[in-house]
Amino acid sequence: MAVYTEVSDEELAAFVAGYDIGEVVSCKGIAEGVENTNYLLQTERGPSILTLYERRTKAADLPFFLGLMEHLASRGLACPTPLHGRDGRALRELCHRPAVIVSFLNGMWPRRVTLEHCAPLGAALAEMHLKGADFPLVRRNDLSVANWRPLFELERDRADAVKPGLAETIAAELDRLEGEWPDDLPVGLIHADLFPDNVFFLRDKASGEDRVSGLIDFYFACTDTLAYDLAICLNAWCFEADGAFNVTKARLLINGYRKLRPLSAAELQALPLLARGAAMRFLLTRLYDWLNTPSGAMVKRKDPLEYLHKLRFHQGLGGPGGYGIQ
Amino acid sequence: MAVYTEVSDEELAAFVAGYDIGEVVSCKGIAEGVENTNYLLQTERGPSILTLYERRTKAADLPFFLGLMEHLASRGLACPTPLHGRDGRALRELCHRPAVIVSFLNGMWPRRVTLEHCAPLGAALAEMHLKGADFPLVRRNDLSVANWRPLFELERDRADAVKPGLAETIAAELDRLEGEWPDDLPVGLIHADLFPDNVFFLRDKASGEDRVSGLIDFYFACTDTLAYDLAICLNAWCFEADGAFNVTKARLLINGYRKLRPLSAAELQALPLLARGAAMRFLLTRLYDWLNTPSGAMVKRKDPLEYLHKLRFHQGLGGPGGYGIQ
Repeated sequence: MAVYTEVSDEELAAFVAGYDIGEVVSCKGIAEGVENTNYLLQTERGPSILTLYERRTKAADLPFFLGLMEHLASRGLACPTPLHGRDGRALRELCHRPAVIVSFLNGMWPRRVTLEHCAPLGAALAEMHLKGADFPLVRRNDLSVANWRPLFELERDRADAVKPGLAETIAAELDRLEGEWPDDLPVGLIHADLFPDNVFFLRDKASGEDRVSGLIDFYFACTDTLAYDLAICLNAWCFEADGAFNVTKARLLINGYRKLRPLSAAELQALPLLARGAAMRFLLTRLYDWLNTPSGAMVKRKDPLEYLHKLRFHQGLGGPGGYGIQ
Repeated sequence: MAVYTEVSDEELAAFVAGYDIGEVVSCKGIAEGVENTNYLLQTERGPSILTLYERRTKAADLPFFLGLMEHLASRGLACPTPLHGRDGRALRELCHRPAVIVSFLNGMWPRRVTLEHCAPLGAALAEMHLKGADFPLVRRNDLSVANWRPLFELERDRADAVKPGLAETIAAELDRLEGEWPDDLPVGLIHADLFPDNVFFLRDKASGEDRVSGLIDFYFACTDTLAYDLAICLNAWCFEADGAFNVTKARLLINGYRKLRPLSAAELQALPLLARGAAMRFLLTRLYDWLNTPSGAMVKRKDPLEYLHKLRFHQGLGGPGGYGIQ
């Protein structure tokens, strides 16, 4: 759930007066996203999204995130574009928090992922990688292989309370990941959090097919191995609710991606290891949140063991053929 | 927070196809309201609100609530109007829950109540009472004087854990309210929950004044003493955050009301007692929720003692002059 910060009428009117978008006619808190406060803002010119950045988003990173959205949108990728105020600035302040207004995107994120979503998703991810290639800013991924062990150490003593043997499983896997993590694959701008709730689809009336209408939430975006982004999507989109891996979804996703950006033999070969790393990243952050979220908090905790299960699946693969590809 | 029920793309598309409002282009959960699931739905024809009724709203009462909204809207009151499907029905089913689509209202509810809101609020309440007068359906108020003692008995033993002496204070006040509660004042259709988050305002560009742009959330509406509705508003709108009663707000509210619907001498005389009853109603339901909401629930509990404080204020008044009126 969102809406951590209630904005008063006077503050909102004064904030919106800094833009050339007419007067506010409606402003409703959106019950999505867990990091920031989001409002669906309607002004005389139409809908847009008002975001107030709460403490989990580092203010120093905002120029990177906003610059990236603007860069991608200017190259024709469907994603939110920050609006600029009359003073030329996109990043402003509201209720003592950094705040922006971004353009509104039509479409809905898929509550139930079907085969039809996977090829368009792969294509959208490749399109983002290609269009992000000349983005001039760099942001290190602070949730990559070097960061996993320190994160693990914070919770090592309590991990077995979540599941007996979990600490040992994680420690052994970290040894392997740290030893074999590739550093020679193509690097560029990655989304790093492209879960279903960050991808909007709209049905095309003529064809009846679901098309990607936009990517959102670039607040984990960073500079890292491109194929790692695909590995994150394999975990987030290709497992069924019962834990089964849907190899058809994986094949559609990877082939959808390859049509726009071919994968090298080295990238394909590394995919199972990258998917193990992606599973470890979400296992560790969910474990941290699980052990550190007060039980009365108004945030739904996500089960870390879902990602232990995903990790084990990739550990059992002999190679990228396990994803249904050649 | 809202959004108890996630609606899948397929279910949503099928549901909306039952209306003549074009195809869905966006659907976002709204983080307001605590009883039902609300989505801001955008179709090719514009915005509307999709509501799924969760268990706390009795299905048997829905024809009353929806009929009332339609009645009031047809008489020109700004409030949501249920849309009818192609089959003529307004009340339908989605995700195994009763569901409706209602018209979208511009405006924002005031996060901070100022003097400027109070006269328009009073006028809007009176307008609702006048336009509801010929609504043919009747719904007994199941949270009125006869229901308070049974509600209190459920929590009597635990009340003193919230505040020592609370059980005795409530018992004594219930004796008084039950003995003196008026049954000869004008009765009609009341909103019964007209808190600030249920009243939308918009600034009028010409005058610069805040005007009521709509009333929402009729899910406590019932047939009861009209002046009791005003008493609920006195409690909900005229106390400051520090507990101080703002007599100027009360005067503006009551006089705003009286301009459209004059209050009889008997109604004015009864106002302090009605306000004590209104304070008791919210004290008891909040006490119940306070003691029965699991600490991990994703609902913010409201402090029952806020209403004990309000009750004590009205107990100390010599008459309606305490509200700044003559």
